Amino acid sequence: MTNGRKLRLAMAGGGEGAFIGAIHRMAAALDGDWELVAGAFSSDAGRNRRTGAQLGLSPDRVHATLDALLADERGRGPDERIDAVAIVTPNYLHAPMAIAALDAGFPVFSEKPMAMNLAEARAIADAVRRSGQLYALAFTYSGYPMVEEARARVARGDFGAIRLIHVEYIQGWLSRPLDREGNKQAEWRTDPARAGLGGCLGDIGTHAFQLAEHVSGHRVEALSADVTTHVAGRMLDDDVNVLVRFDGGARGTLRATQVAAGEENGLRLRIHGERGGLEWSQMEPNTLTLRWLDRPAEMVRAGGPGLADTTLPRLRTPSGHPEGYIEAFGNLYRAVARLLREQGPTDGEPIGGAGWFPGLEPGLRTMAFVEAVLANAASNDKWTPLSVPMR
Amino acid sequence: MTNGRKLRLAMAGGGEGAFIGAIHRMAAALDGDWELVAGAFSSDAGRNRRTGAQLGLSPDRVHATLDALLADERGRGPDERIDAVAIVTPNYLHAPMAIAALDAGFPVFSEKPMAMNLAEARAIADAVRRSGQLYALAFTYSGYPMVEEARARVARGDFGAIRLIHVEYIQGWLSRPLDREGNKQAEWRTDPARAGLGGCLGDIGTHAFQLAEHVSGHRVEALSADVTTHVAGRMLDDDVNVLVRFDGGARGTLRATQVAAGEENGLRLRIHGERGGLEWSQMEPNTLTLRWLDRPAEMVRAGGPGLADTTLPRLRTPSGHPEGYIEAFGNLYRAVARLLREQGPTDGEPIGGAGWFPGLEPGLRTMAFVEAVLANAASNDKWTPLSVPMR
Amino acid sequence: MTNGRKLRLAMAGGGEGAFIGAIHRMAAALDGDWELVAGAFSSDAGRNRRTGAQLGLSPDRVHATLDALLADERGRGPDERIDAVAIVTPNYLHAPMAIAALDAGFPVFSEKPMAMNLAEARAIADAVRRSGQLYALAFTYSGYPMVEEARARVARGDFGAIRLIHVEYIQGWLSRPLDREGNKQAEWRTDPARAGLGGCLGDIGTHAFQLAEHVSGHRVEALSADVTTHVAGRMLDDDVNVLVRFDGGARGTLRATQVAAGEENGLRLRIHGERGGLEWSQMEPNTLTLRWLDRPAEMVRAGGPGLADTTLPRLRTPSGHPEGYIEAFGNLYRAVARLLREQGPTDGEPIGGAGWFPGLEPGLRTMAFVEAVLANAASNDKWTPLSVPMR
Amino acid sequence: MTNGRKLRLAMAGGGEGAFIGAIHRMAAALDGDWELVAGAFSSDAGRNRRTGAQLGLSPDRVHATLDALLADERGRGPDERIDAVAIVTPNYLHAPMAIAALDAGFPVFSEKPMAMNLAEARAIADAVRRSGQLYALAFTYSGYPMVEEARARVARGDFGAIRLIHVEYIQGWLSRPLDREGNKQAEWRTDPARAGLGGCLGDIGTHAFQLAEHVSGHRVEALSADVTTHVAGRMLDDDVNVLVRFDGGARGTLRATQVAAGEENGLRLRIHGERGGLEWSQMEPNTLTLRWLDRPAEMVRAGGPGLADTTLPRLRTPSGHPEGYIEAFGNLYRAVARLLREQGPTDGEPIGGAGWFPGLEPGLRTMAFVEAVLANAASNDKWTPLSVPMR
Repeated sequence: MTNGRKLRLAMAGGGEGAFIGAIHRMAAALDGDWELVAGAFSSDAGRNRRTGAQLGLSPDRVHATLDALLADERGRGPDERIDAVAIVTPNYLHAPMAIAALDAGFPVFSEKPMAMNLAEARAIADAVRRSGQLYALAFTYSGYPMVEEARARVARGDFGAIRLIHVEYIQGWLSRPLDREGNKQAEWRTDPARAGLGGCLGDIGTHAFQLAEHVSGHRVEALSADVTTHVAGRMLDDDVNVLVRFDGGARGTLRATQVAAGEENGLRLRIHGERGGLEWSQMEPNTLTLRWLDRPAEMVRAGGPGLADTTLPRLRTPSGHPEGYIEAFGNLYRAVARLLREQGPTDGEPIGGAGWFPGLEPGLRTMAFVEAVLANAASNDKWTPLSVPMR
Repeated sequence: MTNGRKLRLAMAGGGEGAFIGAIHRMAAALDGDWELVAGAFSSDAGRNRRTGAQLGLSPDRVHATLDALLADERGRGPDERIDAVAIVTPNYLHAPMAIAALDAGFPVFSEKPMAMNLAEARAIADAVRRSGQLYALAFTYSGYPMVEEARARVARGDFGAIRLIHVEYIQGWLSRPLDREGNKQAEWRTDPARAGLGGCLGDIGTHAFQLAEHVSGHRVEALSADVTTHVAGRMLDDDVNVLVRFDGGARGTLRATQVAAGEENGLRLRIHGERGGLEWSQMEPNTLTLRWLDRPAEMVRAGGPGLADTTLPRLRTPSGHPEGYIEAFGNLYRAVARLLREQGPTDGEPIGGAGWFPGLEPGLRTMAFVEAVLANAASNDKWTPLSVPMR
Repeated sequence: MTNGRKLRLAMAGGGEGAFIGAIHRMAAALDGDWELVAGAFSSDAGRNRRTGAQLGLSPDRVHATLDALLADERGRGPDERIDAVAIVTPNYLHAPMAIAALDAGFPVFSEKPMAMNLAEARAIADAVRRSGQLYALAFTYSGYPMVEEARARVARGDFGAIRLIHVEYIQGWLSRPLDREGNKQAEWRTDPARAGLGGCLGDIGTHAFQLAEHVSGHRVEALSADVTTHVAGRMLDDDVNVLVRFDGGARGTLRATQVAAGEENGLRLRIHGERGGLEWSQMEPNTLTLRWLDRPAEMVRAGGPGLADTTLPRLRTPSGHPEGYIEAFGNLYRAVARLLREQGPTDGEPIGGAGWFPGLEPGLRTMAFVEAVLANAASNDKWTPLSVPMR
Repeated sequence: MTNGRKLRLAMAGGGEGAFIGAIHRMAAALDGDWELVAGAFSSDAGRNRRTGAQLGLSPDRVHATLDALLADERGRGPDERIDAVAIVTPNYLHAPMAIAALDAGFPVFSEKPMAMNLAEARAIADAVRRSGQLYALAFTYSGYPMVEEARARVARGDFGAIRLIHVEYIQGWLSRPLDREGNKQAEWRTDPARAGLGGCLGDIGTHAFQLAEHVSGHRVEALSADVTTHVAGRMLDDDVNVLVRFDGGARGTLRATQVAAGEENGLRLRIHGERGGLEWSQMEPNTLTLRWLDRPAEMVRAGGPGLADTTLPRLRTPSGHPEGYIEAFGNLYRAVARLLREQGPTDGEPIGGAGWFPGLEPGLRTMAFVEAVLANAASNDKWTPLSVPMR
């Protein structure tokens, strides 16, 4: 039904001055799969209107609220009606908006973290099951081709049994109290009422956690955490160090901070098994470094020789023509489009498939992770188990 | 007139199996400035039709030839008619197509090299002057933010008078005779009838030349060249080494090869002046390394502190979220769109402006460079001057 | 008294097939400060004799035991007698040998870890106080020029108050059970009777701990640890992850492993304060990377501009001529020589001085660290304090 | 005869304030093969005396001239007499001193360039043949383990027939007229009467040339050069760019400059053959990067898996413990010692052998290279052949 036309996207959030909404729009546009046709961009009426106009939307598709948008879209015919809703608001709106969209019969592509807490995340999961609609989460880094290469190589046993899994996500932009100096991005991210339980933990610790579990194929079973707020007056954490124990015996650490002054966006994953290991760093995303017990280290390159079959469809350019963050994001939009076009709403393809995207499972697990970290940090217990009933 | 709507693009070339056409489409789509509405994608009727359908074009906007496309578009009203033509064919079609489009009253965004030789390039220049239409050339690497940062820093004198300018463009994909093994990209690029005078020289040597002159602000005055074909049976060069002398006294080398087995797309520029120097490498495009006589080296980063005013509008993401080749390309499309929207056809903004793009001047100079290199290589003269009458 | 002549060194351990003894000999020889004149290299009589002969020692200076050596040396006149003893044996001999040498009136340069446990280390400290002799510990990495640069910059406040201190020491050579395959280095390092309480923890975790405290100037106050043995049958740990809290409020992690298959000798330190941070990696020791909130990152280079006064005397070559591990080691030997020549036995110069070397304080603290890590890992307590009475 | 004792070295030049003399002393001392016993360090009597005293030499072994030293040594018995002379003076003394030492019956280890010009170099070659003594040249970079690894891999055909050879040696320390500001190193290096025909060309261009020929196994047959002096008033070149053609059809460039402001000591070699290529950079000397047409790039590491048999004896430390410039230099001293001990004076072992060192052949070829570059630069000829009669 959708074949031969662009899919129609509505956006909730992402008005003037927002960061991630513009990224979503570029990522969706990149491969020609999507066109943005409707939006509820801002609770500020003027900003909402201006954003719609700048994006060339018809004024009757720009709504003051998501509810109004959903009602309008449900009334439109199949030649006009949106195919999905992208939710790019601050965290506190993720759950109510996702549930509203799902219950209105629309697939959802939501920003992370999934929700403010695990209870909200479970309510979303219920709505997904109830509605039968697709639900995708913007764990963007999963979209990088070399992340898929890493995952595929661990899965096929290149390194033997996995022993060590270390992930870190290091930013410095909140080293100063920007949250009290008028920076909107900083403001809501450090406000428990809008960000949820975790600060840095929810904002980027969740990315680190999802990446480690996604690539390693192992699940965290227990953790021990040190959670700190370095900037005086800040209400949420800005620095988190966690000891993690995985199923199968792998051990590691997870580190997330937003007060590593001078650092940019240092998401880095290192995994070692019996015979070798891998390293991937988001800031140089087109190289996957492999090291081996018995032969020289290799630099596997996007577009170069030796890539897994599941990596290839995530590439757009020949080797040496760098792809970046927007392309990684675009791979998630492409995967969602593919599923909507070819199969209708489902839970997505198997991991590694061109139609795979992060959905409920990492969403629920990351929220449980946030709660377990905070519970552990507030207690004198050495270890806190991480168990996440998936239903 | 074009404000508030997407600009309409037609594409000549870029059918199934082509490489650069798809890049143009992604780059044009990225920022929401352009929509592809028409095309003459291939001389193969089936391939042409299929490409149009895959791209969601209306069948009446898909034409067997560019001439048919231009005639059709001239007959359409201002609410439908295309705003520009992208030419993404093999080299031998660049000049006739550009001239036809310009003379039909349409702006042109052409792949490089400008033409098969300098005479053809001059004919294009004549058509530009005759038609008054905009003419842009896909010297893509000029679109990288950190290339602009480099240019701006040289221009404002950070390094003092420039002494050394070295540029290299190193690929390995033609190390084997792919041109005789069914690789379409290799076939036409090594066929004088379709590629023009230069092989590697025309294909990537021109990029290197344009980048060096663009960033340094200096112009090559004389050169001495060694031009080689390493792969037996190949009809055009695959390896070029050139000594270059610039106005103002700077000296350097230009190296381009497509037989550096194992290399990817290694375009690298190094410039040194009296007080320091810079290094930029396309494969890690978001870092500009600066070295100084009297203080530690600096890594200036896309999105980080200390950027020039003219660099900032070329960025889409915060620091540490890598942008790449498609985004660099998108900056050229964005610049062309900006000029078409705001000012109508012109010669473009001053270098550094958000509406700047490479046009006639680098186009003509690169063609003259190709001819001078080949003339020098064929003679016993040490030095061949490079003089390019711009009219 | 020693001015104008080389200092005379005796060595305990370091016979044929040993690793670190040869490093000590090269480091001591490098700057012409020392000559090796005596030794008790091995408990194997043949190996002992051959090592002495290969090193060109007079047979009467080669002894079956350190005790015999000490007795002999005490009987020699001031024109012959050794100036110091280097102890390069497996760990279990460090304490008894150091105490014997000190009590015999000789300065000691000992391999790390200081001893098998804290009690032994305290016995050494008592002998140092009793004898008044110099005691130096081979925390080699402290000898790198750029480690001194890092320390000096933290100390002078370049980064503001320190918030984050992360150190890791990653090796892979014990990924397989080499300890049961005839590798002598592996054998004793994994044998509690010869290595002491810690495996990887004692062997390289101590280096990481000392480096972090030395450079940051902060002391670990409490820790929480996960200690693992991944290789079946191994009696000591081979992988350690620790959450660390420092005085002054800095938080961080310490990671040490010898089963990161394919890794070499990855000692890396990262420290961040309010305004910026530093990164130093032992495998590229001549660069210190500095990142800043408000300006581009810098690469401070050995021999380059901008170095601290205390860094300069630790350099032997102009910038760009790499110095390495042996030179770092040589800086410790040079510092010991300097003190012995100029001042006689003391506690060493202030940190940063050309005569500074690691001695009792880091020795005792690292042994207390090993015990605290193991105690914490064996308990259900979240945090174990680290307090080290220095007397 | 020399087995079981250190070899005795005399040094000509290398007094207080000199650079390379101290490096020679450290390199010779490193492995315990040599002891410095005599010297004629400076024509300044006070400096000469002080240097000898600082080095702990007996005053009767410190001489005002090399001639006096040689006469004295010839009169000493075999238990005292020196085994070799190291010549570490400015260039103009290399030839007369080498000839004097050789004719007095002593092996010579000389700094490069071999001499002021090719005629002088030939006179040295005559003296070598006449005397039958060993003659070694400090082409230090040949001593790096990973340079041997590179050479061995090219020689055994890993890359197929070699097509591209590019070498560069980039320094910045002469960007300012230090030669007229009291810098002694700069003074003599830019004075034709003391440095010889070439400035930068002789000082570092010769290193680049030797490295390229040594590793590639190919010999330059013809060249075309651009030779520049950028700093006003300087009498010798400070920037050289050369097109080079090798036997067997390989083409490339050689670049040497001392006015690349901010650069340190950037000697870098890149070689590509039919199937792959290598890259080695002196400033990160322990990695050899290999790239391949058909598989991922490899980082071959000093001490890591996969090394050639001839590389191993050039290593002193396990992988990840960096060795540097002094160790590379030490490998040459070790090779000379080995030959003197085991075989007596010879032409050295085959390239790759542990007793190989650079001698007459690269010495003569580099001097011929300097003359050919200058001849070409002074003419209008495109190509100047490089032919070097070896006798």
